[in-house]
Amino acid sequence: MKSILIVGCGLIGSSILRAVSEKKLFKNIFVFEKSKKNISILKKLKIKCKIINKLSNISNNLDFIIFCTPMSQYSNVTLKINKLVSNNTIITDVGSTKEQSFKNIKKILKKNTTFIPSHPITGSEVSGPKFGDKNLFKNKWCVLINEKNINKLHLSKLKSFWKKLGSNVIFMNSKQHDIIFSITSHLPHLIAYNLVKTATDFEKQKKYNLIKFSAGGLRDFSRIAASNEIMWRDIFFSNKKNMISAINLFIKNLNSFKNDITLKKNKQIINKLINTKKVRKKIIQLKQDINKPDFGR
Amino acid sequence: MKSILIVGCGLIGSSILRAVSEKKLFKNIFVFEKSKKNISILKKLKIKCKIINKLSNISNNLDFIIFCTPMSQYSNVTLKINKLVSNNTIITDVGSTKEQSFKNIKKILKKNTTFIPSHPITGSEVSGPKFGDKNLFKNKWCVLINEKNINKLHLSKLKSFWKKLGSNVIFMNSKQHDIIFSITSHLPHLIAYNLVKTATDFEKQKKYNLIKFSAGGLRDFSRIAASNEIMWRDIFFSNKKNMISAINLFIKNLNSFKNDITLKKNKQIINKLINTKKVRKKIIQLKQDINKPDFGR
Repeated sequence: MKSILIVGCGLIGSSILRAVSEKKLFKNIFVFEKSKKNISILKKLKIKCKIINKLSNISNNLDFIIFCTPMSQYSNVTLKINKLVSNNTIITDVGSTKEQSFKNIKKILKKNTTFIPSHPITGSEVSGPKFGDKNLFKNKWCVLINEKNINKLHLSKLKSFWKKLGSNVIFMNSKQHDIIFSITSHLPHLIAYNLVKTATDFEKQKKYNLIKFSAGGLRDFSRIAASNEIMWRDIFFSNKKNMISAINLFIKNLNSFKNDITLKKNKQIINKLINTKKVRKKIIQLKQDINKPDFGR
Repeated sequence: MKSILIVGCGLIGSSILRAVSEKKLFKNIFVFEKSKKNISILKKLKIKCKIINKLSNISNNLDFIIFCTPMSQYSNVTLKINKLVSNNTIITDVGSTKEQSFKNIKKILKKNTTFIPSHPITGSEVSGPKFGDKNLFKNKWCVLINEKNINKLHLSKLKSFWKKLGSNVIFMNSKQHDIIFSITSHLPHLIAYNLVKTATDFEKQKKYNLIKFSAGGLRDFSRIAASNEIMWRDIFFSNKKNMISAINLFIKNLNSFKNDITLKKNKQIINKLINTKKVRKKIIQLKQDINKPDFGR
């Protein structure tokens, strides 16, 4: 593949830029970015690429296009890239939900072209190209959506792209994907936001200054709750159905904990607390975290 | 002060042991510990101290006694130390809730002796003397309960003890303490446990293998949800009233988020997500966390 277009160059886009440049995967790299602040940071990286702020500024057919904007911009982006694509172009994204965005894109994408959704499971609470890292995808999962009618040649090329960036590629359908990540990622983020909101509401209500004591647990949630608001609004809205089921299950379980506490149900609560500890062991075995105790940073 | 008795020598007790030994704060150090495993770990530390497994094995009056057992053992411990104390003995603990335990201890403590509750805001998800650290209290808050009838001379000596261990001492009454930490520490832990429980329930229901994708958020909660179950049962039960209020406020806010998602209320959700980000900034300014992005460990 000769040419790549990275659409949107924040944390993820600029990490892809750094990685493909370092590994010399493409001859021509185009970067679409509108934010002046981001463009100025990107220029300082001294990476050989063409930064454009209008998609009409590219004339050639492209080999590879990757959407790294917030998901709410996908329809807009698709309409604009339609004239840059042929049936050989591999088109993908890095968004955190799949079912709805995939449907929307398919509706407006130029006929006889293929879009295959990707989701690299990585990121941080910070955003912007300043924090990009060429190793961001290394040893991380990357989910590719494999459904009927997906172009298998494109899929295999896309898999190879992510493998070159160091990812472990896994296939799912978009429905499966959205259900799984509603629990492992979207609900945890919502809960973190909600916990910090609860602490702030409480502070106002009771007029206690409590944030300064947040090292006892709140701190860890506040990091997750500092993630980008546009990105997370898009995730919550586009995964609405699964989010609502996840929230309902969470509230059901929380009411059960409340009941255990109210009635001091010793056996029930101890069982719950022991079982969650087992999950932690599994997470470490699966190399999703390291087995190093945290005493605060 | 010449002699100290550390009652229970897990993570916190053994950290106190290491610190007082290193700083030579006492001539005689007694450690009460029943677990054979813990005793064997403690012996390997080669710290000059007397490890006892029966409190009747000490005959002298002690200058300083600190309870480091789970809070559910406090009544039992108080009854046993009654014969080792005089009105000069400083007696304290390190438990995470104060109102109920303080009341219980006062009821059964020998007349004319004083107990002053302490709460060092530190710890980890791991337990046991293996993980103890002489610097565990350094630059961490330590709350001392100051209420009417508290012996001011003892309070000042206790403050000086924690300052020698490196803590920043702050005074509260037990009611205030329990309210503040119900939000900054107890609720976050319950929420972490509940989130991991929800993920496991979901895994069973849907027969999806999802734990292997926990790097997207769940991982961070699972660390907190691996904390000691006896300790946390005691905290939840002894801070029952405040836990229930905190859970109710949390559920109210979560339902409001659910409503925003269901009706795709853009402005409302963006406002919520932006406001939580501000709290993160405040937490970093207050040195409760460092400003280093987390890309996974």
